[in-house]
Amino acid sequence: MADPGDALIDAARAVADLRELANRTGDDSGAQRLCWTEGWGDARAFLIELVDEIGVGHELDRAGNLWATLDSGSRPALALGSHLDSVPDGGWLDGALGVMAALGVLRAWAESSSKPSRPIALVDWADEEGARFGRSLFGSSAFAGSLDPAAVANARDADGERLEEVLAANAVRLDRVLEAGARRDRIGQYLELHIEQGPVLEAEGLGAAAVEGCVGIERHRLRFRGQASHAGTTPMSHRRDAGLAAAQAALRIEAIARERSGVATTGSLALRPGIATAVPGEAELLVDLRHGDSRALVEMLSAVVAEARTIAASRDCGLEIEPVWAIDPTRFDRALVDAAAEVVEERTDSTRRMVSGALHDAAEVARVLPAAMVFVPSVAGISHAKEEDTSDEDLIAGIEAFGALANRVLARPGS
Amino acid sequence: MADPGDALIDAARAVADLRELANRTGDDSGAQRLCWTEGWGDARAFLIELVDEIGVGHELDRAGNLWATLDSGSRPALALGSHLDSVPDGGWLDGALGVMAALGVLRAWAESSSKPSRPIALVDWADEEGARFGRSLFGSSAFAGSLDPAAVANARDADGERLEEVLAANAVRLDRVLEAGARRDRIGQYLELHIEQGPVLEAEGLGAAAVEGCVGIERHRLRFRGQASHAGTTPMSHRRDAGLAAAQAALRIEAIARERSGVATTGSLALRPGIATAVPGEAELLVDLRHGDSRALVEMLSAVVAEARTIAASRDCGLEIEPVWAIDPTRFDRALVDAAAEVVEERTDSTRRMVSGALHDAAEVARVLPAAMVFVPSVAGISHAKEEDTSDEDLIAGIEAFGALANRVLARPGS
Repeated sequence: MADPGDALIDAARAVADLRELANRTGDDSGAQRLCWTEGWGDARAFLIELVDEIGVGHELDRAGNLWATLDSGSRPALALGSHLDSVPDGGWLDGALGVMAALGVLRAWAESSSKPSRPIALVDWADEEGARFGRSLFGSSAFAGSLDPAAVANARDADGERLEEVLAANAVRLDRVLEAGARRDRIGQYLELHIEQGPVLEAEGLGAAAVEGCVGIERHRLRFRGQASHAGTTPMSHRRDAGLAAAQAALRIEAIARERSGVATTGSLALRPGIATAVPGEAELLVDLRHGDSRALVEMLSAVVAEARTIAASRDCGLEIEPVWAIDPTRFDRALVDAAAEVVEERTDSTRRMVSGALHDAAEVARVLPAAMVFVPSVAGISHAKEEDTSDEDLIAGIEAFGALANRVLARPGS
Repeated sequence: MADPGDALIDAARAVADLRELANRTGDDSGAQRLCWTEGWGDARAFLIELVDEIGVGHELDRAGNLWATLDSGSRPALALGSHLDSVPDGGWLDGALGVMAALGVLRAWAESSSKPSRPIALVDWADEEGARFGRSLFGSSAFAGSLDPAAVANARDADGERLEEVLAANAVRLDRVLEAGARRDRIGQYLELHIEQGPVLEAEGLGAAAVEGCVGIERHRLRFRGQASHAGTTPMSHRRDAGLAAAQAALRIEAIARERSGVATTGSLALRPGIATAVPGEAELLVDLRHGDSRALVEMLSAVVAEARTIAASRDCGLEIEPVWAIDPTRFDRALVDAAAEVVEERTDSTRRMVSGALHDAAEVARVLPAAMVFVPSVAGISHAKEEDTSDEDLIAGIEAFGALANRVLARPGS
């Protein structure tokens, strides 16, 4: 189904590149490509070797994103990419898959006798994970203009090092990162291949999916205040147990997510004083709500707040609710999603479209450019761990689908 | 209702002694009489001053318990006491009330023209709180023979100091503490006055209660094992959330305690990884069950285990249950409890008998001797905090009732 002049991606070679990257930058505990560290630098050095091999130049933008562009005419480029950085003890595919697939497309065209209809730009976004300083999507949000440099200037890592100084050591000046956005005018669209990082495709026996967007997130801290008291001398009828209020709330929050087809997680609960011999006087529950539809997300949050208030009152506890973080749902470009769905069906027979429950660089890029993604399955849904994997068959089919999608978008007249 | 020859306790003076003790060994944060520290030594020095004033000698036994005996004939003594040690930032009455009330009885008889029918021994038990090394009822359990020295030899405090060495610095040799039990033959009964440390007497508007015994305790660690996974990419239907299993269990445990008229506390819950963005893969819940009746306690535990297993299975989680600590319920001596109930009713019109939800030295002594206790109310049920308090009226009435109880027991022929 490729056009006669299309350059065909060599998916097996992309997988071999991924394995070599894992050899060079991983250990027995998994991938060690934490952004702004030596392991990440090694990964980029390897990427630059590969880019050099195919005779394409590269450059860093003001936010530390690496760009390698195969020039071809003056129309806006098709950008393809993801991120090489990993969480500590991470997986071999998270981010790296999309970068090596993008390289595969560049290589296919560089080695082809044909020329693409317009430039193709590979991008390796800086610090997607935010695993060191807590600020995810750093490079892509600088590109999109949504990063607030002042808000992150004083972020520190676990060793107390300041983000601003670590960036400077990497030749990135925090006060100039938004200049990375200057490149937006030269890019027409953005495509990203990524692992699902969840169990859905595997459970449904599917080889890939077109991604329609990313969920919105509402993250809040619920602090229940009761009365700490002696575990032995306080009759059940006299207790104001903040821990049980939080337990009840966590179970209701689960039910709310099920009723409204979203997801909700209560992954952190801190009890005070937190000892076996005291009724908890205070309980802090972190609630993470996600939904692909912004109205449904707002409704989930309202329901959570109402239920938590009712529960707190029923146990004579106070309740404070503090917003921690929020982001609106992202809808990817309809035409690009349709194109992604077409190639996914052609290559894998999967007609699955899904909303990503995790955030990706594509969500930032989608603020300013048409964007879309393709997912391949994750074995057992595991990610951010050395066990992260995807079968060779699914990797090959997904990379080939991604190459076909890039060619289909390149082949379009107006874009 | 006192016999004509009885020495009458000066309750106001006992309260004054308590206030002076608080002045000497407390600060703005509360009582600072942590056992084996300088503050505790200061408290004992004050007690020895008071004992010296009334012309009674004192001695330390092999476990560091302080005894002051008013000699009178060769029959076994009536022992009266409690403990001067406190938790850090503790309350002024916990333990100290019983010691100063015992001193009041000794003083009344020492200053009286009459002689008691037999010796009266004041005892200040060492390290009742166990706040520094985690071993409560140290001195009284050594006296009762239930302490296992080997089991505590390596206990360390928060600064890493070993119990054995700290004891040695206090002239207590751990390998000889059980020799404190040699005194048992010289004691006939034991009585203790204490604050309730709970809200029941205050809520019922009562001035005192006879204590029938102490609850038994079953303390267990429930470890639920599910699967940690991504908060965004794991659909609700695919989750094995160990945290929600623990939350459900905590709520069922509360219901079990209510159904069976015991108390149950889930004061500590640890989630792993314990972050907002991950479904908890592991949850450790500490369960503390208490009941005055041993059969009911066993039934509570069985119900908790059965429910926790059902909940774990319903969420596809594993469950491990690990015993942490257990103690059987203590029943005090029926005749002494009846006598305590009589004086409490005479002095305060309260006919209340209650089972203590907290442990006390009397529970250890009751293993080897007839024993009983009297409780006075705690304002707002608060203890182990600087806010711990009892109204002067209740203190006076309680101390007078305790003095009357001592005299009644002394007046009995055979005992």
